[in-house]
Amino acid sequence: MKLIIDNIDIISMDEAGHFYRDGVIVIDGDTIEYAGAKSGLKADHPDAKRVDGHGMLALPGFVNTHTHVAMTIFRGYANDMALWDWLAEKIWPAEELLTGEDAYWATLLGAAEMIQAGVTTFADMYMFMTQTARAVEDCGIRAVLARGLSGPDGSTDERHREVEELRTWRTRAQGRITTMIGPHSIYTCSRDYLKVCKGMAEKHGVGIHIHLSETEQEVRDCIREHGCTPVRLLMELGLFDLPVLAAHCVHLNDEDIEILAESGVRVSHNPSSNLKLSSGFAPVTRLLERGICVAFGTDGAASNNNLSVWKEMTLASLIAKGQSGDPAALPAKTALRMATAMGAKALSLDKVTGSLEKGKKADIILIDTNKPHYFPKGDREVNLVYSGYSQDVDTVIVNGRILMAGRELTTIDMDRVHYEVDKIVSRILG
Amino acid sequence: MKLIIDNIDIISMDEAGHFYRDGVIVIDGDTIEYAGAKSGLKADHPDAKRVDGHGMLALPGFVNTHTHVAMTIFRGYANDMALWDWLAEKIWPAEELLTGEDAYWATLLGAAEMIQAGVTTFADMYMFMTQTARAVEDCGIRAVLARGLSGPDGSTDERHREVEELRTWRTRAQGRITTMIGPHSIYTCSRDYLKVCKGMAEKHGVGIHIHLSETEQEVRDCIREHGCTPVRLLMELGLFDLPVLAAHCVHLNDEDIEILAESGVRVSHNPSSNLKLSSGFAPVTRLLERGICVAFGTDGAASNNNLSVWKEMTLASLIAKGQSGDPAALPAKTALRMATAMGAKALSLDKVTGSLEKGKKADIILIDTNKPHYFPKGDREVNLVYSGYSQDVDTVIVNGRILMAGRELTTIDMDRVHYEVDKIVSRILG
Repeated sequence: MKLIIDNIDIISMDEAGHFYRDGVIVIDGDTIEYAGAKSGLKADHPDAKRVDGHGMLALPGFVNTHTHVAMTIFRGYANDMALWDWLAEKIWPAEELLTGEDAYWATLLGAAEMIQAGVTTFADMYMFMTQTARAVEDCGIRAVLARGLSGPDGSTDERHREVEELRTWRTRAQGRITTMIGPHSIYTCSRDYLKVCKGMAEKHGVGIHIHLSETEQEVRDCIREHGCTPVRLLMELGLFDLPVLAAHCVHLNDEDIEILAESGVRVSHNPSSNLKLSSGFAPVTRLLERGICVAFGTDGAASNNNLSVWKEMTLASLIAKGQSGDPAALPAKTALRMATAMGAKALSLDKVTGSLEKGKKADIILIDTNKPHYFPKGDREVNLVYSGYSQDVDTVIVNGRILMAGRELTTIDMDRVHYEVDKIVSRILG
Repeated sequence: MKLIIDNIDIISMDEAGHFYRDGVIVIDGDTIEYAGAKSGLKADHPDAKRVDGHGMLALPGFVNTHTHVAMTIFRGYANDMALWDWLAEKIWPAEELLTGEDAYWATLLGAAEMIQAGVTTFADMYMFMTQTARAVEDCGIRAVLARGLSGPDGSTDERHREVEELRTWRTRAQGRITTMIGPHSIYTCSRDYLKVCKGMAEKHGVGIHIHLSETEQEVRDCIREHGCTPVRLLMELGLFDLPVLAAHCVHLNDEDIEILAESGVRVSHNPSSNLKLSSGFAPVTRLLERGICVAFGTDGAASNNNLSVWKEMTLASLIAKGQSGDPAALPAKTALRMATAMGAKALSLDKVTGSLEKGKKADIILIDTNKPHYFPKGDREVNLVYSGYSQDVDTVIVNGRILMAGRELTTIDMDRVHYEVDKIVSRILG
């Protein structure tokens, strides 16, 4: 069964940056068969299902490269606290009471918010990852899942069983799930255990998802304990031999940036969370100048408090200008690429998603620009990044399936989710 | 004719910070007759028109304390430039081609965006102010208008005629328009002319709206030319004897902050514009600590690129934390007060608007919180500031009149506005 989006302006985000006015997208099953000008379309497809894209703008779906989606259950629970206090005093005690079933419903809540914000792929690191996988299967979004790991040694058998079980999900959910190995950070994992994690990643043939140089304290403590920065420590332990997705990277020295560039580490930039927890401003402009792949992450909804890549994109672009003193820093075109194509690359999914072109999976969002804040109709990218909102996303397609149309979710029963979330919150947070 | 909003949760923003769950608001003509618990309501009002507020949150409308609304016509026109280049190379040449009729349509476009973002009052400083007044009259929003003034002396007769004409609007548009005198800045007005402006403000019995200490260059040049900072210069010229609304206040020294506090100057904080033009980070936390009235402004849509006070509120709260290194800086409750009650105070309208209580004008917004990003239902203020979006505003009432219901604008014909805006843009920007 084919799905055709007609009369649609297309920002393809392909390498050449093609834009097609009043074009057409043909979807065959889960895959884009054609995206481009109407004149380039060979066949007629009279039997296809059709969506009229008039007045809409098609973009590849946004990629959220760092979150803890089940933490959506803690949204608004604790605020105005520094990272360590927030974790130790509030989040970790509450997490003790969380069950796998809770994580399932919390993931659906977070997925609903992400779909409504045009996020079609997210990378997660948390507990109860097979329950998160089940929610991903049910709601139709794409995900890169990592069981969060920590500890002094490799004797956490139960967690490793979960890692192995998560691996089996790679052949389920229509192939929408891939996995990574998720050592939490250098301050919650020992050197030996980080090496164990590297071994697991090699065995599974996947990359590593880790928090890195998020706070000044992390860097200071690391230098005191290990005699080097967290970035250098991971390099010395050999972790950068693998594809690494490093979340935050706020506090970096010149050598760190050089190491990240040389090692091909991908950085997930989470500006809302870094500001809200007052962790600092990541040196995004310098990372980009050095050719590092930088994409956006929302972090968990407990420290943001949204799961919208669009919001991060706008914020990052403004902050980069204010921080650098250069009003040309992180221009709209770059920000939009970071939110889409570079996001896919950061997750090693650049052959799968992140652009609208033949052969990619059909992860597509349609944006309704018939709103006052898109007028006058000037530079498309500028209007999206500086004037647009997550709520302008009208339609979301993942893997060829429509997950939202006219802002109505098609795969998630929100009344049920709200009911279950209320029950969980009453039980856990009282 | 009375209008009653029933079954409504009310964040009153009155001095005591009252919240009423499942309360009621009674509007008599343009005025709030009652806002509070159902049990406190005396009469039945069987003939009143009723709005069911179930699932909604009522707030006083947002106050945009600094904009140039007709500049909405330049949204997205020039980006990634520093303030002076942006003004001199792009904006001023384009403004030469602008007519009063253009300003009328551009104001309607900006007003449409503001109403959709829950802004019920805005303070403007620009050209063609009587055309802006006409648009304000037509669309039903509340405004504090100032004809932008600049020059070496008082010989700009035509502008002063406009100032006098604008004054006559204070008795029109159901009293929704007040005025200020708007000397543009210390770098576009001479000392003598600033004194002339002070005289006009005294004669009209109104305050002054001025750009102040927006960029480092403004401060540096002022010290070179006048031997003191812009803040000290205005004080020495006697301008602070009057109520002054000072936009930006990014670059302040300790003495400046002391002068602003002692003089009761109100500060309009415009974080998006200050970041986008890389002007810097305003010391908001220090201003608030010193007891200064700080409210939010969007600046013009050409340097933001939105007119949403909500967006500024969220951004300001995040930036304040990141900049100060204190995750408790600018908490949600304070940010929400700055966006409403303190906004009204900044415009000398605190007896008129900014809170939901008996005797105030009925400037009310209803927010639809039945969306994934408001779950779990924790701290109301936290959820609004960190998770909410302008698009969650469902209904907007100004002066007792419904300007938006179910996100549909009731007073502005957007098809006509878009048509006229397209025509203007073709003519001016080519």
